[in-house]
Amino acid sequence: MKQALIKDLYRNTESYIDQEVQLSGWIRTIRDSKNFGFIELNDGSFFKGVQIVFDEQLANFKDIAKLPISSSIKVAGDFIHTPQAKQPFEIKATEIVIEGTSNVDYPLQKKKHSFEYLRSIAHLRPRTNTFSAVFRVRSLASYAIHKFFQDKGYVYVHSPIITGSDTEGAGEMFRITTLDMDNLPKNDEGKTDLTKDFFNKETNLTVSGQLSAESFALAFRNVYTFGPTFRAENSNTARHAAEFWMIEPELAFAELPDIMDLAEEMVKYVIGYVLDQAPEEMNFFNSFIEKGLVDRLDNAHTANFGRVTYTEAIKLLQESGETFAYPVEWGVDLQTEHERYLCEKVFKRPVFVTDYPKEIKAFYMRLNEDQKTVAAMDLLVPGIGELIGGSQREEREDILAGKIKELGMNEEDYWWYLELRKYGGTKHSGYGIGFERLIMYLTGMSNIRDVIPFPRTPGNAEF
Amino acid sequence: MKQALIKDLYRNTESYIDQEVQLSGWIRTIRDSKNFGFIELNDGSFFKGVQIVFDEQLANFKDIAKLPISSSIKVAGDFIHTPQAKQPFEIKATEIVIEGTSNVDYPLQKKKHSFEYLRSIAHLRPRTNTFSAVFRVRSLASYAIHKFFQDKGYVYVHSPIITGSDTEGAGEMFRITTLDMDNLPKNDEGKTDLTKDFFNKETNLTVSGQLSAESFALAFRNVYTFGPTFRAENSNTARHAAEFWMIEPELAFAELPDIMDLAEEMVKYVIGYVLDQAPEEMNFFNSFIEKGLVDRLDNAHTANFGRVTYTEAIKLLQESGETFAYPVEWGVDLQTEHERYLCEKVFKRPVFVTDYPKEIKAFYMRLNEDQKTVAAMDLLVPGIGELIGGSQREEREDILAGKIKELGMNEEDYWWYLELRKYGGTKHSGYGIGFERLIMYLTGMSNIRDVIPFPRTPGNAEF
Repeated sequence: MKQALIKDLYRNTESYIDQEVQLSGWIRTIRDSKNFGFIELNDGSFFKGVQIVFDEQLANFKDIAKLPISSSIKVAGDFIHTPQAKQPFEIKATEIVIEGTSNVDYPLQKKKHSFEYLRSIAHLRPRTNTFSAVFRVRSLASYAIHKFFQDKGYVYVHSPIITGSDTEGAGEMFRITTLDMDNLPKNDEGKTDLTKDFFNKETNLTVSGQLSAESFALAFRNVYTFGPTFRAENSNTARHAAEFWMIEPELAFAELPDIMDLAEEMVKYVIGYVLDQAPEEMNFFNSFIEKGLVDRLDNAHTANFGRVTYTEAIKLLQESGETFAYPVEWGVDLQTEHERYLCEKVFKRPVFVTDYPKEIKAFYMRLNEDQKTVAAMDLLVPGIGELIGGSQREEREDILAGKIKELGMNEEDYWWYLELRKYGGTKHSGYGIGFERLIMYLTGMSNIRDVIPFPRTPGNAEF
Repeated sequence: MKQALIKDLYRNTESYIDQEVQLSGWIRTIRDSKNFGFIELNDGSFFKGVQIVFDEQLANFKDIAKLPISSSIKVAGDFIHTPQAKQPFEIKATEIVIEGTSNVDYPLQKKKHSFEYLRSIAHLRPRTNTFSAVFRVRSLASYAIHKFFQDKGYVYVHSPIITGSDTEGAGEMFRITTLDMDNLPKNDEGKTDLTKDFFNKETNLTVSGQLSAESFALAFRNVYTFGPTFRAENSNTARHAAEFWMIEPELAFAELPDIMDLAEEMVKYVIGYVLDQAPEEMNFFNSFIEKGLVDRLDNAHTANFGRVTYTEAIKLLQESGETFAYPVEWGVDLQTEHERYLCEKVFKRPVFVTDYPKEIKAFYMRLNEDQKTVAAMDLLVPGIGELIGGSQREEREDILAGKIKELGMNEEDYWWYLELRKYGGTKHSGYGIGFERLIMYLTGMSNIRDVIPFPRTPGNAEF
């Protein structure tokens, strides 16, 4: 009699008919009559549990019947096929061993709990239906991304988390130190003596792996990163976390349309993968988190994503007759309301907006011939707004160096980045996708805190 | 005429015979006679390059002939099959377009450079044979690990990088702050006012994802982490880095032998995967980095890993007649010299050492019935020493709480960790593997700085 996982009972039901099985897991619900009872057992391998029928033929019947929910047990029993019933099978227990008796004050009693409350017990929330589904889909989507790029021969790059300086220019950074903060060493100028710190200088947590990825793309041609990134922004919104994961593919010998093709293919691949691998979870989201979710994803999976320039998009918004909180004119950055209007109302599918004004985009984006816009793209998706941001990179050393100077950035920090242009530079392009935003898009969950195992936000680094 | 990757020319040679192809890449070597020349072109998709033959029929023959190495070009030409020659094919160029002319002071000229020098140009070193091989194998090994666990249905958990307190007890930590370090706010006691910091308290970079993984294992049964971890130890050795990646599987309803089986299967899987997917790179390591590497890996791939208790291992070392720098007696921690002697001389294959004295192991390891040892295991491998460390976790709430108290640890920090034992705890076990050490094991590279894209060590956070 071999240990089985509940997932396998569902996926390979035929092979278990009339067999003895051994399961272990946690009691989700339990009820008993005088001489028999039912347990819904979940073992974590699958979204659904299995019904265990037990009766007083078990020597420990009374002990079992008294078990609080969340207790862990090992069950041996007969697999009973019940194709006509609501549940296609159940287990008639021949033996139940108590592994761990839960305390009766288990916080996840049957009533519905708010997501906010569940964040305060983040160590237990993966045991609920919602978070079991969220974190399984998160795992599957991670793997889908690796599989997508690896099947194409892309090289996965672990870009550094600790960076020597704020060269990425993408936002507020967290500082790292090993100095005693109650007793800082001072230099002659009365400032903190950073030469005494672990790295002998100021260091921060990365906000992007892009620059590292560029250096690897100019060796391996096609690469991607997938790692944690950080923003020390004091924004307490449902879309911002201080710690989140990013995927950043970077391609040598590639221009803007190449990475739009890639991004479209990747998003479709991940959607297809999770719909295929986690149908139970996706149906749960569709029923209980966002009605119409699966239709929305199916639509994105089959549609050709729209493509429109920023200049055209501004015109569309201006001519829409819609009243926006933030007024629209050429030169402004698009707000979420504009982004969502474009993809939800105008295009009714994901849409790339390209060629943004250079003033509102990063220094490394390639200047277009009009001298006003850069070869940038954002992918906007219904329900979310911006999901992906990318660009062709400025490969012309003189223009890039001029831009760094013009913006008053510290040129010394960029010596190696500029050298990538000096020694066999090529046209190259890449994009970044915030992984949590992708999970929100895939699940319909509306708060970033509910798609990260242990979220970090201003004032909150519990667990 | 479609863009081809050099990898595909090698893997699907037959399909290119007598075809026109279009390639792009970087010039590794170039030489020319009066009216013809040869380029070794590498496009990053493959360890090897391809020979491009060009002659004065090209209008820009003279410009091409003058190109410095590392320049990037696009080549159209005829695929010439040369099965008798050393190189099985070459490209007769019909057109070469210069994409980026490299500067002549390109640092990677043909002569052999020391690994130490190459660390100072970490942005360029992936273009060398050695680092191209290392970082491709690193990428493949990453994927092999994901594939291994995902194929078994394990859930990938992104454990947090920023932690609220030093609850992991695994080493010195880096502190994180957004306070102005030249102007720290003080509290009434004259100490730094941490309530003003981003998270309103002290936060650090994680040293291990294990405790988070345990909480997910008690929901999903089988999980793993794969992410960066940090140690602020001032050790300048070839084996220590301040930032490195770890994989930490954690299994509910699993005891020590279960995770030894899993670790053995995982190591064999990754070895098989890289030997299969990167034969050119592995042969390169075997020839130029460590003679006998492939034999060593083949041996590990087929052997049954040894298993010996710590107590037996101490006896074996004492009876060996070997003189060790660190003397051996029951109770001491094993040093690398002991570990390597055991697997290289005694067992001649990877070996698990189990059941270490409780005093030298972490607080969360399960106390054995002898009350002296814990259910821990280390996997020792030839050439490296310890590759993996793991244990059965203490699932008994009272014993764990007692241990936390006994060690003077801050009990409040562990409320949620103890609750995992209170609400349906189960026997559970897991292990950690330092990913860089695995890459050193797979490649024969002897310095951790040479298997991480941009290494972070004391005094060094360049790039």
